[in-house]
Amino acid sequence: MKEKKQRIQEKPPRARRIKPELPGGFRDYGPGEMIIKQKIIAKLKKTFEDFGFDPIETPDVERTEVLTGGEKESQKIIFNVKGSKEKKSDTSLRFDLTVPLARFLAMRPEIEKPFKRYQIGNVYRGESPQAGRFREFMQADVDIVGASSSDADSEIVAVIYQSFKNFGINRFMIKINNRKILNGMLRLAGFPEKKLIDVIRVIDKTDKIGKEGIEKELKKILPKKSLEKIRAFLDIGGNTKEKILQAREMFKGIASAEEGINELIEIARNCNAAGLDERNWQINFSTARGLGYYTGPVFESFLLDLPEIGGIFQGGRYDNLMIPFTGQKIPAVGASLGVDRMFAALEKLGRIEKKQTKTRVLILNLTPELKSDYFRMAQKLRNANVNTSLYVGDDRAFQAQLAYAVKIQVPFVIIYGEEEKKKGRVAV
Amino acid sequence: MKEKKQRIQEKPPRARRIKPELPGGFRDYGPGEMIIKQKIIAKLKKTFEDFGFDPIETPDVERTEVLTGGEKESQKIIFNVKGSKEKKSDTSLRFDLTVPLARFLAMRPEIEKPFKRYQIGNVYRGESPQAGRFREFMQADVDIVGASSSDADSEIVAVIYQSFKNFGINRFMIKINNRKILNGMLRLAGFPEKKLIDVIRVIDKTDKIGKEGIEKELKKILPKKSLEKIRAFLDIGGNTKEKILQAREMFKGIASAEEGINELIEIARNCNAAGLDERNWQINFSTARGLGYYTGPVFESFLLDLPEIGGIFQGGRYDNLMIPFTGQKIPAVGASLGVDRMFAALEKLGRIEKKQTKTRVLILNLTPELKSDYFRMAQKLRNANVNTSLYVGDDRAFQAQLAYAVKIQVPFVIIYGEEEKKKGRVAV
Repeated sequence: MKEKKQRIQEKPPRARRIKPELPGGFRDYGPGEMIIKQKIIAKLKKTFEDFGFDPIETPDVERTEVLTGGEKESQKIIFNVKGSKEKKSDTSLRFDLTVPLARFLAMRPEIEKPFKRYQIGNVYRGESPQAGRFREFMQADVDIVGASSSDADSEIVAVIYQSFKNFGINRFMIKINNRKILNGMLRLAGFPEKKLIDVIRVIDKTDKIGKEGIEKELKKILPKKSLEKIRAFLDIGGNTKEKILQAREMFKGIASAEEGINELIEIARNCNAAGLDERNWQINFSTARGLGYYTGPVFESFLLDLPEIGGIFQGGRYDNLMIPFTGQKIPAVGASLGVDRMFAALEKLGRIEKKQTKTRVLILNLTPELKSDYFRMAQKLRNANVNTSLYVGDDRAFQAQLAYAVKIQVPFVIIYGEEEKKKGRVAV
Repeated sequence: MKEKKQRIQEKPPRARRIKPELPGGFRDYGPGEMIIKQKIIAKLKKTFEDFGFDPIETPDVERTEVLTGGEKESQKIIFNVKGSKEKKSDTSLRFDLTVPLARFLAMRPEIEKPFKRYQIGNVYRGESPQAGRFREFMQADVDIVGASSSDADSEIVAVIYQSFKNFGINRFMIKINNRKILNGMLRLAGFPEKKLIDVIRVIDKTDKIGKEGIEKELKKILPKKSLEKIRAFLDIGGNTKEKILQAREMFKGIASAEEGINELIEIARNCNAAGLDERNWQINFSTARGLGYYTGPVFESFLLDLPEIGGIFQGGRYDNLMIPFTGQKIPAVGASLGVDRMFAALEKLGRIEKKQTKTRVLILNLTPELKSDYFRMAQKLRNANVNTSLYVGDDRAFQAQLAYAVKIQVPFVIIYGEEEKKKGRVAV
């Protein structure tokens, strides 16, 4: 009978053993890491709210059409999602937080503009897993939608700047450019229009392959005369004022570039007004931010002590993103920080002190007769905002419980047995 | 030429219009809602940490085999996930946080036990969308793994209790039972073993269909004599002591049930020791917590003023969950709160004061010449931890900016124009 009962009472152990492992490109955060990740998130949240951004949350799953806009390029990087009763998948995991923002605002046209929101959440890339690249990672985005002014652009630069400062990082560099200037290269250097994308793509690699690398690659696609012009453009140097003056001279009469330069002037002025240290931001004409949806200023930021880690907090102006949803242009500018990358950076900078637990006190559970005292002590400490754990494991031995306290790295232990009770005191 | 440039400079508007909508069963949280959701999460986090639970995070995507253990039942409620280059899906979105915890611990056997962790995150149900049921929702879980004692069970009851208290809710009821007692009904009432599951399933519906409903349904599956015994069991009433005494009498000699009753006695004692108000918890022999993986005590909690909303924070002991991964039984107990359900409950209880923004101050952006003053003011207020927004919209008119301030419900507005500058003061 006992045999039989056992079978019902407890779920029968499944015959098949299942390997406890994660899919490639996914990761866990144990307590030691998660405590830090939570701190990072809290710091970002505070910084964004200081700047008047409010939180929103959109689901991880969106209609595939919304995410890709039918484009094959984005189709390649997504995870399709299919419910158990659906024959075909028409939903996917989001690959960024910007497209969902556009969809969100298109659904709520009543929201007052400018709309300043932040969102911190996971995004997913359905590519094949590669060493060191994750397929689920957390992004923290700030965006201002419904403002075309350079003031809005400048606020984004300022929030990037302040985020680093609030992490106690002083050695960082925000590189600022404008896609309108890059587009102006077409007229400046007089090469065929269809090459513009390739030229921008090459220039974007400056930080990775250096000026010589760029030179080499551009040689392959540009005639000599064009190359010289581009080289002169990329050679622009000096301080902000000098760079601006040279660019102005160079792009004289090219309307798009002139507009872009004027916007940079505005942003630079605002950065100065807001007291942003010039050692932490610069105009950089080779910053291009990929080919994505940017239409104006672009921002990219690096840690001076960890350039190899790449861009950490970047963005730009994207005035066209709402068009597929609303048919209308709505100006927008924002930036996105890679939370996991920031985590890795802080770790490499030695700015992380890992704690395995936030528990401050462990009450040893030694004498069954005193249990009500233990529960009462725990209750009191918790009410006083002291993170308190009562030992609830199966080992009643003092030594075992003490060893546990040491292993989980809890700083204080309360020892209260018959002897302590007699003496009317508690050993800590 | 301008025409041409335009085409490159800006991403061409995609011809196809995309309907901005969400897949069925998914939802957005706008700022007004998200500000509250963040508060709920923060409160839970604090409560869990007070009790010595530490955070972990596991990915939303797991290997399907890990989630379902090859069981068809769970296969039905999951979302399959497929990367763009994968031919077949072998990953899925998690449907709870408990199975991932088991997988996590099986991968990290070095973690010291008892292991107390909390996790707050989204889970997904791939069923067909139904009115009012979400397919993505947030759960907040607390679990103690590696402790078989009733002290561990009691700590879970206590953290459920304290969570409600910390939300300012006093009218709630935690119902406590033990699966071992329910399993004991088999011997008590002498019905065929294969009917046990059906009987438990019916009893579990007591809160929904009432005693008469239960009676009716049990009549269909049980012989009269068995029914009488079950009825007597379910009729047990009185205070905790009386209930326990009656059950003890009834199940005398049925080992499993006696064990279960002894555990309930321990838990009740601990609840009293910890000072848990008896108006907020009770032994309830009809609480069964579905058929899942529970092996011992089970907990379910309700709001007395909103019984229709159903269970909010529930759980129990599940000592077998690790078996598929490790081949070994590892005792574990925990509970799970539905964050979105808690949100709905607080809203219905009128405990929510929706604010559209956390921004405290809006600086009007009136005079271009004073812009550096505006940026400086913003900087100063932010440094003083005042959430501050600078108006960056495209309308320079005072009236428009003031109207904006009213619409976004920002409590303070700073007006600083030429006149104020002359007077050397700021209007608030």
